[in-house]
Amino acid sequence: MTTLSDLQTPCLVLDLGRLRRNVDAMARAVARTGVALRPHMKTAKSAEVARIATSSQAGGITVSTLAEAEHFAAHGFRDILYAVGIVPAKLDRAAALRARGVELMLVTDDADVAEAIAAHPAGLRALVEVDCGEHRAGMPVESDRLLEVGRALGRACAGVMTHAGHSYGCASVDEMADLAEHERATAVRAAQRIAALGLDSGIVSVGSTPTALHARALPGATETRPGVYMFQDLFQTQIWSGARDDIAVTVLSSVTGRRPEQGQLILDAGGLALSKDRSTSSARRDYGFGLVLDMHGEPLPGEPVVERANQEHGVVSARAGLDLARYPVGTRLRVAPNHVCMMAAMYDRYHVVDGGEEVVATWDRVNGW
Amino acid sequence: MTTLSDLQTPCLVLDLGRLRRNVDAMARAVARTGVALRPHMKTAKSAEVARIATSSQAGGITVSTLAEAEHFAAHGFRDILYAVGIVPAKLDRAAALRARGVELMLVTDDADVAEAIAAHPAGLRALVEVDCGEHRAGMPVESDRLLEVGRALGRACAGVMTHAGHSYGCASVDEMADLAEHERATAVRAAQRIAALGLDSGIVSVGSTPTALHARALPGATETRPGVYMFQDLFQTQIWSGARDDIAVTVLSSVTGRRPEQGQLILDAGGLALSKDRSTSSARRDYGFGLVLDMHGEPLPGEPVVERANQEHGVVSARAGLDLARYPVGTRLRVAPNHVCMMAAMYDRYHVVDGGEEVVATWDRVNGW
Repeated sequence: MTTLSDLQTPCLVLDLGRLRRNVDAMARAVARTGVALRPHMKTAKSAEVARIATSSQAGGITVSTLAEAEHFAAHGFRDILYAVGIVPAKLDRAAALRARGVELMLVTDDADVAEAIAAHPAGLRALVEVDCGEHRAGMPVESDRLLEVGRALGRACAGVMTHAGHSYGCASVDEMADLAEHERATAVRAAQRIAALGLDSGIVSVGSTPTALHARALPGATETRPGVYMFQDLFQTQIWSGARDDIAVTVLSSVTGRRPEQGQLILDAGGLALSKDRSTSSARRDYGFGLVLDMHGEPLPGEPVVERANQEHGVVSARAGLDLARYPVGTRLRVAPNHVCMMAAMYDRYHVVDGGEEVVATWDRVNGW
Repeated sequence: MTTLSDLQTPCLVLDLGRLRRNVDAMARAVARTGVALRPHMKTAKSAEVARIATSSQAGGITVSTLAEAEHFAAHGFRDILYAVGIVPAKLDRAAALRARGVELMLVTDDADVAEAIAAHPAGLRALVEVDCGEHRAGMPVESDRLLEVGRALGRACAGVMTHAGHSYGCASVDEMADLAEHERATAVRAAQRIAALGLDSGIVSVGSTPTALHARALPGATETRPGVYMFQDLFQTQIWSGARDDIAVTVLSSVTGRRPEQGQLILDAGGLALSKDRSTSSARRDYGFGLVLDMHGEPLPGEPVVERANQEHGVVSARAGLDLARYPVGTRLRVAPNHVCMMAAMYDRYHVVDGGEEVVATWDRVNGW
């Protein structure tokens, strides 16, 4: 039996009970709206997690890289939306997946790429990407470009998609529900414009964790694509996606030094182990580079945080001071992430626990591109 | 023949000529001071790069993880300083390297760990870590703790080490030279205190890229441990470590979309491809998440930067606007890093070029712990 005490630190710990609870909560929230849940695997990047997230669901997943698409295909997933704009040089990789029987759906917001997709001999299909206000990828819904891209896809067109990533900036659950309605309405309007060209607009894909959780209703949408809900993180807990004890993924680390002069601990979890993500710097509460918990994932007195992260050193402090005697060198602590998508990407596997110290499984992640 | 046009994006490109030039520049700077150059491989994490960095040198290297130590040992390196404080649970891995004939040197600033090192049957050896003002790891040089750790090591003591990482905050080369002198003097004083206990203080290890480059003289020190100089980055160029055209590692990416409404490009290099490091936010010039160059690594009109980095989307803008017609979707661009140690860690290999477009080699990196 391997326990948390046997693992080399730093490493990634996944709490199975919390994962299941988060998955159930999202399944209930999405079931209310009647659309399909197409979980976004960009956070977990794990076939085992994908199986849990798709149980009792239609089975389709979303990915953010072709490496993920290939990994999940190799693990039996057959309905995959690659939700990042593709470039012509990647079409052959996409086609190879279709040749293996994968229903791989692409997205684009570019007429030249749309033409290349339509012209590819593999019979590729794609969604037209619409911008509902995040101003990342996608076109304005009333733009001429939207129609140009649709026309260029022609028979390769399968519908539309949008992503309200700016839901992360909403100031209340009501604002999120309003934004979910705007996301839905934008996608539905885009689908109407595409349909008016005589093209297939069957898929109307929306979603982010906040808008999937808080949408009042999603008429006209067909699916939603939340991802980070599976694990939760310190940023999500501050925008009403979950509670701190829903956070399912943490870094297990060791105290490597103590600084009585500064009242600080040093952990072997620094900028590489935690990522340099500072998303909570814009949240109501700033957790530095992560919240420090005990080895069991429970809060510590004074709620210490990693205030500074050099490459392999995390410097821990607490506003009211730390009782360093509690933390001899070698003490194992866990660090909850600001942004779990970034932190988890620093590791090639999860050490899975189920409420205790025993490591009940080890699950691979697929990183890279 | 593979060229940059054949590679899947995003990926990591290493310019061999620039690497060699950076290595030569540091070798000359360190030769002036008469100490040994023990290059820190935490940035490059590559045996091939280590061979270049140690050519014409004593051959010893520095590492930041045991995974690096094991990787370099497997590639024939026999003189390795693991320069991050160790914990007792990792001593057996260190001992396994010594059993394979590796002269692995440890560091600690903790008396309990020092006792465990001394008590280990493998005959481990360690340096006492001193704080010269960075306030990360290490003890104050005049502290009683310094002597306690030395005494606890006893015959396992091999000398002292310190790291003036706060050199990154110096406002001029003169300040850096002054700090290099303080770093040296602190280490030498610590070695004297250790020697006064009758312990071995033969190794007096100092260094960071700025203090190694700019030290006026290093009497009493025996070695210096710079690392990032091999590759350089946008932060280093702003603290006089090198010029922008010394930056040897960039991310090759593709334009995946264009936003005429905002005058922006979207790249397939986002927060995972570039890391979320924002170190230039505190520098004289803020490059966002990286400076965008053409496929050959040359500057572009208006010097666009990645102003925003979502997981797989990099949003590119230029202060004076971008001529989007220059950048059709699929255009290949390179992104120079804010902090190359963080960015390179997102990849498992380098695609090596030597001034042209041809990929002349592919070199593995060792990530993780």
